[in-house]
Parts: sequence; structure tokens; C-alpha cells
Amino acid sequence: MAELPGLSRRRLLGGGAVAAGAVGIGWGASGLVRREPHGDDGLDVVAFHGAHQAGIETTPPGHAAFVGFDLAPGVDRADIIGLLRIWTDDAARLTRGLPALADTEPELAARPARLTVTVGFGPDLFTVAGLPERRPPWLRPLPAFPIDRLDPAYTGADLLLQVCAEEATTVAHAVRVLSKHVRSLVTVRWVQRGFRDEPKGQTMRNLMGQVDGTVNIAARSVDFDRLVWDDGTAMPWLAGGTSLVLRRIAIDLDTWDELDTDGRELTVGRRVSTGAPLTGVDEFDEPDLTAVDRFGIPVIPPSSHVARARHTHDGERFLRRAYNYDDAPGPGQLSNSGLLFAAYQRDVDVQFLPVQQRLAEVDALNEWTTPIGSAVFAIPPGVAEPGGYLGQRLFES
Amino acid sequence: MAELPGLSRRRLLGGGAVAAGAVGIGWGASGLVRREPHGDDGLDVVAFHGAHQAGIETTPPGHAAFVGFDLAPGVDRADIIGLLRIWTDDAARLTRGLPALADTEPELAARPARLTVTVGFGPDLFTVAGLPERRPPWLRPLPAFPIDRLDPAYTGADLLLQVCAEEATTVAHAVRVLSKHVRSLVTVRWVQRGFRDEPKGQTMRNLMGQVDGTVNIAARSVDFDRLVWDDGTAMPWLAGGTSLVLRRIAIDLDTWDELDTDGRELTVGRRVSTGAPLTGVDEFDEPDLTAVDRFGIPVIPPSSHVARARHTHDGERFLRRAYNYDDAPGPGQLSNSGLLFAAYQRDVDVQFLPVQQRLAEVDALNEWTTPIGSAVFAIPPGVAEPGGYLGQRLFES
Ligand code: HEM
Ligand code: HEM
Repeated sequence: MAELPGLSRRRLLGGGAVAAGAVGIGWGASGLVRREPHGDDGLDVVAFHGAHQAGIETTPPGHAAFVGFDLAPGVDRADIIGLLRIWTDDAARLTRGLPALADTEPELAARPARLTVTVGFGPDLFTVAGLPERRPPWLRPLPAFPIDRLDPAYTGADLLLQVCAEEATTVAHAVRVLSKHVRSLVTVRWVQRGFRDEPKGQTMRNLMGQVDGTVNIAARSVDFDRLVWDDGTAMPWLAGGTSLVLRRIAIDLDTWDELDTDGRELTVGRRVSTGAPLTGVDEFDEPDLTAVDRFGIPVIPPSSHVARARHTHDGERFLRRAYNYDDAPGPGQLSNSGLLFAAYQRDVDVQFLPVQQRLAEVDALNEWTTPIGSAVFAIPPGVAEPGGYLGQRLFES
Repeated sequence: MAELPGLSRRRLLGGGAVAAGAVGIGWGASGLVRREPHGDDGLDVVAFHGAHQAGIETTPPGHAAFVGFDLAPGVDRADIIGLLRIWTDDAARLTRGLPALADTEPELAARPARLTVTVGFGPDLFTVAGLPERRPPWLRPLPAFPIDRLDPAYTGADLLLQVCAEEATTVAHAVRVLSKHVRSLVTVRWVQRGFRDEPKGQTMRNLMGQVDGTVNIAARSVDFDRLVWDDGTAMPWLAGGTSLVLRRIAIDLDTWDELDTDGRELTVGRRVSTGAPLTGVDEFDEPDLTAVDRFGIPVIPPSSHVARARHTHDGERFLRRAYNYDDAPGPGQLSNSGLLFAAYQRDVDVQFLPVQQRLAEVDALNEWTTPIGSAVFAIPPGVAEPGGYLGQRLFES
């Protein structure tokens, strides 16, 4: 390890330049990105400090782990604050390519690969912290939907870590460090790993083969500020934060694979090849839900996913940032695939719930998809500068 | 899907150029690699046809799935040949970025991302095929070692698919297609997914933080031909093939993390920071197992992993091509990590077994590592050109 302190110092100095002179890239990048001169993407850094947590407006990198933790019995407010101070410090270092304090595998920290660490609070955290009146009203389990087959192994949690990076080794190391450093205070409830492969300028495909993520909220737009970031009106501590709804949705590829292309396109309301709406030519053409064919039949079926999911007014929009999962199949299964559907919005009840409710009632896609996990979190604002900690305003204002 | 046939034709023509004019890159690349002019790595192709199967001499890409299948009751030699014809055809297409025949998600085939598909035969396949005399003598389960805690869920199999690519979506799709097309003939016994992040010109690190893969057999070398590729002396059908030993080895990171850097370096016999032997300075310096310090104590402990694993004569060398795994932890666990240790050699008994036996007797690393899965496969030669099928010489010569 003789080289490491030197490496760290060099990287620390390099890291210091980020806030000063780097430029944002891609999808969004509220987190600024630095490229080292030798062009090794594994050294790219997304800034940790800022008004918002990174990992939401940030262009989604290839790998993600969502980790749900439960607070251990006996944990109190001071413990939670201690935990958040540790996570803040660890995340600030790891996201820069520096080992965490007392990192036992410091070498695995050297490739940040656009690492982001995003922390969320589950409903019960507010009770444990003795701050029930600060829980946002929308922060509670979603109502039970008839389509749900929720497995407690993927449902609910007191605390969330969302860890994303371009390299799976980076994700593994960050999850390990962050989990380990607070192990006396929590138990791991679930770990859900996912991936998305999104070539530059293209939208990813999910494992059903669909272009997934077309209609979204552009990063660093007025809409983003309005629809995603909380302004603190209801809960001053949450200004600059948001909410996350994480749904683990199993896909039945065996039956999906029996459906032909026409059937698939009528199910979603878009072309499989290009992602264009059935009423358009290009992926980003606006779907026309009123268009009918010469027999008067709607071109985009009213029961299709797009017709049902589409916002009926501006206040029903939210940010989607899904990852595919493809886990080892159980006995007798051929595959075990699905989507880690992640939606971010200022207000779950107002923006997300009406859409989810509509889809739970009627959505042609439901024939092949089953929600098997569900959790809702408040995402506190970012840590503006070194010295602060995640969620500080919840506890100290 | 209007675009797809056109796309396919274009890619098919593009693919035809591979065999003619492409150049190999990287680590090895017995498979030739084509780069499209726009520089999207997701379109890079490793040639499927050749004297050897791709995925062995090929520079290991970032993601792998090893899938073990059992033959269904009643399957016979003709069924196995049918299965191998399907896999050959599917693999030849998918590795070029073409959909498999009857591919139900053809869009997911469009990014081959250096996909390789490597097929292996387990011991019982020879019995089922009625060709027991053609089973290589080394093709049987490894002897039980005292260090083993083998889980049947990761042990043995009649058939192996090794699927590697730079993109996880590509791996997921290829595994799905290949499994699905033969589902009436097999059941999935296990799927083991892994990853490795290996920046250009550097050796990957495993999740213990070690540089892993330094001492190896250079691709396209005389040694490779001699030590990895079978020459058909014992089993003419296997000429150009090899063997794979796949060991799933759990790593106890909780206890490993209690060990300091000195302890770690004495355990392996190499520096954590650089991977250099304790007797050297650079990663690729030859370890000097005879060097002693001023008290006469060996610098590289005789019980260290490197001292024990090192070949005692040339005939004990083999190719290592390991992948990290980091699966969801079980109840009460913090993490569930390890190594998918994959060794390729002409003769398991001569090259691999003595080393494994030595390590099972004494290896300082054993304190933190536990083999929990084990399987041995014969890897038939490659399909030289279109028209043939994997393993053809086993059945037809
Ligand atoms: C496995 C489950 C799901 C799959 C495979 C899926 C797939 C898709 C696809 C292919 C599109 C069209 C392209 C695009 O705009 O991204 C889409 C759009 C959309 N989906 Fe989903 N989706 C799933 C679940 C959900 C859920 C649970 C929700 C919300 C509760 C949701 C909300 C939306 C919205 C709002 C749109 C945009 C609709 C528009 O304005 O055109 N989806 N989804
Ligand atoms: C989790 C399990 C294991 C870990 C973490 C591990 C790690 C390492 C490391 C760090 C090195 C030194 C760098 C290098 O040359 O790659 C190494 C070398 C080596 N390992 Fe392992 N190893 C594991 C299991 C095995 C097994 C099961 C075998 C064979 C039965 C094996 C055979 C070798 C060999 C032959 C070398 C090269 C030794 C030399 O010539 O210097 N390893 N291993």
C-alpha cells in the first residue's frame, strides 16, 4: 500500500478542481463530471456536494444497487444522525475516487466511474427519530393494488441507499463500505441490483425489448425544478429534496414471448423497433391518443400502457429512471427478469399515485408484469458543502 | 419492426467482412474484433467461427453468465445434436449482432458488445449420448477437498453455456434466447453471473481488493497452444478444444476486513497496492520464493497463496479467467461476494488438480475463502466455418 497515500493526495487535489472548472455532460448531470486527460471513463467523477443529491438528475450510469435497511431495535435520533454523518463522509470520498475513512479495500475506491450515492428515508424513520410531524404526508406504503403480489423481501424499508456507477466493482465496493460502517445500527432488508445499457444519444431498452424511458423530464429544466425538486412549502426541511417510489416489477418473458410484434405494439402503444408512438414516426413524436383508423378504431389502444400511463394534466408527471434486473432463476424457471422501476417526484400522492392507480385498473401490459416489491422514500436535499450531513435540516431546523 | 430486416441485412454484410479484414485486439482475441466507424463499443464483434471457441483466448469482457444445464429425462444423442445445432446457429448470429432465428426480442441482439458464447460438456453427457469411451479421463467431478462446502445448487451440470459481453443487457438476452430454444431438452441447474472491470493495460481487482490475474498464459502464444488447446492425441474429437474447471468461491469479507495490509500481503505473497510480489517492485516481476530476510525468514511465506499456487513445473500451468460475483445477501448477511474462478487447461488432472490439491492442503487464503460450487466441462473445438456445429467431431468422427 506504499503508493496509496500518494495516490490519494493526488486524487484529492484533482478532486478539488471539480467544483471549480468541470462541465456537466449527458442526460442531466446536476453532478459535474471531470474527465482525466487519459480518457479513462473509470476515473470520471460526479460531484457529491450540491443543492440536490446526485443520482437523480444525473445521467443514469450502467449499474445500480438499491439497498433497503431497517433500523435496529433501540436505535434513536442521535444514532440516525451519526449514521447519516458517516454516510455523508463516506459518500463524499467514494464519489471522488477516494477511499472511505477506514476503508479496508481502498484500492477498490480508485475507480469512481461516475459513482453516485443517494440516501432516502422510509416512513418509520420519522417515528424512530421522534419527528413524526416532519414526515411528508405522502411518505407511506402505496395502497394495495389488485395487481400487486408483494414479497416482504422486497417491500418497505426505513432507509435507502441508491448506489449507481458505470462499473459493477465500484457499486459492490461502495455498497459494502456504506453498509458495513453502519452495521451496528441497521440490518439489510433487501439489495436489488440492476443494469441499463444506454448508448450515447439513445434510450435504453428493457428486457421485453422495448425502448424504455422516452417520455421523461429533461434534466436541468424548469420542469425538473417544478416537478421533481421539493420547494419546502409543506416541509421546509425537504426543500431541494424529492421522493422515490421503487417498484420491483417481474416480467413474465415466457408468455410475453408468445406475443407477436403487432400484439406487443398495441400493448404499449409504441413501435418495438424505434420506440415511436403508433401515431408517429420518430421516438420523440408526441403520441396522439385521439387518432383513429378508417374504421374509427383508436390507433393507440385506450388500454395500452402509454395511453393509460400518460399524464392527464401536467401535475401527473414524474421522473423515471428504471434499471433492468436479471437474477438467477428459481427451480423450474428459465429466467427471472424484470424492471426496477424508480420514479422521482415532488409529491407521490399528487403526481405518481393517480398514474399508478390508473395502470392498476387497466393496462394491457399488466398481463405480463407483476409488482413484487414496493417502497417509498423521502430523498433529503443534497449537502451543499463539506461539513454538513445528509438530512441535516430534518434534525436541526 | 419495419427497420429490422434492413438492419439485419446491413449487419450481415458488415459481419461478413470480419473474417476477411479485421484485426485482433487486447489480451488475446482469438476472436477477431471489428470496430464500426462511429466508435460505439457496443457494436464490437468477436468472431464466432474458428479453430477454437471464442470466450477463452478472448480478452474477458466486463460481464459473464455461466449457465449449467441438466439434460431432461429421455433425451438421446439425436436430441443433443439437435440442441448443439440450435446453439451453434444462435451463437453465430447473436455474436454478430444479428437476432437468433425466431428471436422474440430481436432488438436486444443489435448490440453484440463483444459477445462470446462458449459451450461445454459435462461428464454425464457422454453417457446419455452413448459415447462413454469418448469422455476424456479427466472429465469428472473434482475429488472432494476438505476445504469444500459444495452446494448442489452450484455443482455439476451436463452442459455449460458461458456467455460474456461488455453489456449486461446483451448477456441477459443471449442467455435467455439460448436457454429458451432448448427448453424442452434441458432444465437450468444454475446461473452464475459475474463481472470484472479491467481498465486497458491493467489487471482486474477482485472484491478482496487484490490484483487478480497477473500470472497467466498469454493469448496467441506458443504456451497457449501447448497448455490450453487440446491437440487430439488422446481424444481426436477434442483437438482444438480444452477443459474448464469452474469453482464458485465465497469470500468472507467480514473477517477479511479485520486483517491489516501486512497480513493481507503475507497471505497472498503480493502487495495489495500494485500486485507486485513481496520480493519485487512491479506487478509482473517474477516472485522469488527462495528469498529470505535478514533473519532467514522467507519474504514470500511458503503458506501464501502465490507460493502454494505457483506451478512446480511447466506442466502445472493453466489459463485463469475469473469473474467477481456480488449477489444479494441472505438474511443477517451484509454481503454475499466471491469469485467465479474459471480455469482452462488441456488436461485437468495434470495441470489443474495438483495445484488445487496443494491449495486445499495449505493456503493462507483458505481462512477467508470457501469453495461452494464446482463443475468440470470439456470444451469442444470451435466451428471452423458455417454449416458445422459445436461438438460435431464428437458425434460424427
Ligand atoms: C415492467 C413494468 C413496466 C414496463 C416494461 C414499462 C414500459 C414502458 C414503455 C416501453 C414505455 C414507452 C416509452 C417511454 O416513454 O418510456 C413506458 C412509458 C411510461 N410508463 Fe411504463 N413501464 C412499466 C411500468 C410502469 C409503471 C409502474 C409506471 C407508473 C406507475 C409507468 C409509467 C410510465 C409513464 C408515465 C410512461 C410515459 C407515458 C407517456 O407519457 O407517453 N410504467 N413504459
Ligand atoms: C477466491 C479465491 C481466490 C482468490 C481471491 C485468488 C487470488 C489470487 C491472487 C490475488 C493471485 C496473485 C496475482 C495473480 O497472479 O493473479 C493469485 C494467483 C494465482 N492463483 Fe489464485 N485466487 C483464488 C483461488 C484460486 C484457485 C482455486 C486456484 C487454483 C486451484 C488458484 C490458482 C492461482 C494461480 C495458479 C496463481 C498464480 C500463481 C503464480 O504463479 O504466481 N487461485 N490468486
